[in-house]
Amino acid sequence: MALMSINSAVDSGFLEALRAIAGGRVSLSIAVREQHGRDEGHHETCPPDVVVFAESTEDVSAIVTLCAAHNVPVIPFGTGTSLEGHVAALKGGVCIDVMRMNEVLEVNAQDLDVRVQPGVTRKQLNEYLRGTGLFFPIDPGADASIGGMTATRASGTNAVRYGTMRENVLSLTVVMADGRIIRTSRRARKSAAGYDLTRLFVGSEGTLGVITEITLKLYGVPEAMSAAVCSFETLEGAVTTVIETIQNGVPVARIELLDDVQMDAVNRYSNLEYPVQPTLFFEFHGSAAGVVEQTETVKTLADENGGGSFEWATHEEDRSRLWQARHDAYYACLALRPGAKGMPTDVCVPISRLAECILETKKDVEETGLLAPIVGHVGDGNFHLCIVFDPDDAEESARVHALNERMVHRAIAMDGTCTGEHGVGCGKQDFLIAEHGDAVSVMRMVKTALDPQNIMNPGKVLPGN
Amino acid sequence: MALMSINSAVDSGFLEALRAIAGGRVSLSIAVREQHGRDEGHHETCPPDVVVFAESTEDVSAIVTLCAAHNVPVIPFGTGTSLEGHVAALKGGVCIDVMRMNEVLEVNAQDLDVRVQPGVTRKQLNEYLRGTGLFFPIDPGADASIGGMTATRASGTNAVRYGTMRENVLSLTVVMADGRIIRTSRRARKSAAGYDLTRLFVGSEGTLGVITEITLKLYGVPEAMSAAVCSFETLEGAVTTVIETIQNGVPVARIELLDDVQMDAVNRYSNLEYPVQPTLFFEFHGSAAGVVEQTETVKTLADENGGGSFEWATHEEDRSRLWQARHDAYYACLALRPGAKGMPTDVCVPISRLAECILETKKDVEETGLLAPIVGHVGDGNFHLCIVFDPDDAEESARVHALNERMVHRAIAMDGTCTGEHGVGCGKQDFLIAEHGDAVSVMRMVKTALDPQNIMNPGKVLPGN
Repeated sequence: MALMSINSAVDSGFLEALRAIAGGRVSLSIAVREQHGRDEGHHETCPPDVVVFAESTEDVSAIVTLCAAHNVPVIPFGTGTSLEGHVAALKGGVCIDVMRMNEVLEVNAQDLDVRVQPGVTRKQLNEYLRGTGLFFPIDPGADASIGGMTATRASGTNAVRYGTMRENVLSLTVVMADGRIIRTSRRARKSAAGYDLTRLFVGSEGTLGVITEITLKLYGVPEAMSAAVCSFETLEGAVTTVIETIQNGVPVARIELLDDVQMDAVNRYSNLEYPVQPTLFFEFHGSAAGVVEQTETVKTLADENGGGSFEWATHEEDRSRLWQARHDAYYACLALRPGAKGMPTDVCVPISRLAECILETKKDVEETGLLAPIVGHVGDGNFHLCIVFDPDDAEESARVHALNERMVHRAIAMDGTCTGEHGVGCGKQDFLIAEHGDAVSVMRMVKTALDPQNIMNPGKVLPGN
Repeated sequence: MALMSINSAVDSGFLEALRAIAGGRVSLSIAVREQHGRDEGHHETCPPDVVVFAESTEDVSAIVTLCAAHNVPVIPFGTGTSLEGHVAALKGGVCIDVMRMNEVLEVNAQDLDVRVQPGVTRKQLNEYLRGTGLFFPIDPGADASIGGMTATRASGTNAVRYGTMRENVLSLTVVMADGRIIRTSRRARKSAAGYDLTRLFVGSEGTLGVITEITLKLYGVPEAMSAAVCSFETLEGAVTTVIETIQNGVPVARIELLDDVQMDAVNRYSNLEYPVQPTLFFEFHGSAAGVVEQTETVKTLADENGGGSFEWATHEEDRSRLWQARHDAYYACLALRPGAKGMPTDVCVPISRLAECILETKKDVEETGLLAPIVGHVGDGNFHLCIVFDPDDAEESARVHALNERMVHRAIAMDGTCTGEHGVGCGKQDFLIAEHGDAVSVMRMVKTALDPQNIMNPGKVLPGN
């Protein structure tokens, strides 16, 4: 049985024109459409009417031009690892899968930058860079595409040291809603020449244009790297250690918090035997002497806050195993309750409010009786709840949404944000006005100017769009 | 003799309404208007019709609302230390001087951030922070206002380590062209919630709105700081040292190049006796051990590239004297030819092209016979020419503009930018399309959406606006 066409503008004439551009790279298969209508979050699958596998910027431009002429929605798609329904085709339309655009186009080793197509994944890029002495640090956990990471302003475990996609994108090639192709910036490290279009597209979630090339900053592989795990008597002690580390200006590369529930899940899932206690995962980068200096400082701070001994991982293999366990946290949560779904949600607050925000949230979780481990990129003030629940249970679902809402409003009241890194998608639109007030109207002016037909990933980011 | 009113909409009815808002803070004095119609660059003075000294965000909002109703241009004004005619009232109108809005509103020491009014200067802010263990690093040379630095995306000597205003502004309060007041972001260090309006206003040069509050990142004062001066046999050796320092990932806080002509000027102006040779000024920040490690690496690189001995300045006083000499470079240039004017112009290129770009520019300067010292924030790939000339000499002026044009097009051809930090103003608009191509049309869509009447600092940034 074929899915009903959701958007009536996707008719046989339109499909014929699309095939004239992309030939056999156009798919109407139900399986392909459904796979392109969902991400890894809890949102319902919303398949597009058609999926087209793009192969070049010019290809994307031709497709978008056609869509504009027919008023058909355009949804860019990478690895589908977003979490807030970013790829759901709420109004049907054309999903542009960019995963065949997966070439590393140009490494400028001397300038510490690289230009890639949007379908290159972060692991693929680092594999490509192996042996050059360079690496790309941003690591949101999933092996996401660079295009998707740019579109959602991803960050992850290394952001405390290396920044987010906001700080690490130098330039973009973008196909606009009318098909025109622009390059947002030259390759110089800084510029005062005109409006910062690069940053405007970073985090725009496909609602302003389709990103078809990305120039990224790279970094020299540090002389020394080591990772450590440290358990704490209390959640407060762990969070205080984080805050003091940041306030002391220690340039930690990673500082991740997992609460007791999350540690239990990780132990079970990854076959580990860490104490079931609030735990910090650290990574230190620098010169040999610098790394020693950093770790001494952090050990002292941990000691003063009820931390146990540091369990070290200096070999690359051991470090990888440790971070794989951390990255599998989400799947570990899901495994706690087979058959259930996860609602991964994140907020970010000024670090002075982090302990308060996490402790109140932990108390709230306990009072609801829900299963919701806490894990976070706490060096940035960013933490996640992964609420594990049965979406078919209306009463439980209602409690889950209420818990999420309370956490978001708690963060906003502390001058924080409704999402530090997952993005808005169609999951957090309702919080945007609480967070940004009248600035949302200015965002809408920008959206309307750049996409007057509202064909670019409609129904995302701006409420009521 | 009163100046003629440039904009006919500024009539007695308008002035009466303006006085109803701002009372005695409205000035029609010729001296005040002329002082507000020029900056420190070579552009002609273009006085506004009226200057109003704003005292609050609400005040600015009321003034802008009035201007919108009467279609009167609005030009924000800080210290007047910009260089590309940013404050010239090309179409007359109201200059809003924000220097009475000079309060530090809130220091969040634990979060390493501060909220200030736009008239606070960078030196005032650091004076205010003295004793807190925190500092604000961005240093464009002039004691500029934070509002102006934000509006022009300023950077300067410390940017190689601490980034530019792009990386250091957390949030803004902005009065839009219709008078509405928005806050662009909350205070969390990162967010994925909506379009990055903060970065859109940073560097918009008053053409999208008036910035009335700025939240900035702060940094802990490093445990150790030391500065050094090192002369080189050749310009190439100095530039190569810079490139290798950056490529080795040494986190230098400052690395500044002055060519032989500039060193001669600095010696004369600041009464110093440095060798008249291409010279690097360094500053190192970090732990005591870290600073030693950094300096050892850089000394080795300098040695290999024909550098002489390092002359050290570790005491704050000595460091200040050294950097004051560097900051006075522009005035030192002007003093080389009393009565002449300076055209300070800057470009920025990927660092792999820096040596080539500087050497070709130096050769070009020599061939023109013009007096044009080179000085630069070379760690970013950014350098300046300060062309000293007689603006009343049409032939010399033509050679000056041609030299500037060749340098800009040389930089753009190397994937660089027409301005790394001075901004576009009304001096570099003609290069914007060469640099950004069709992206300029997207900038224009944003401008038209946010300022449909084109009253916000008209004639700046976008060509033909």
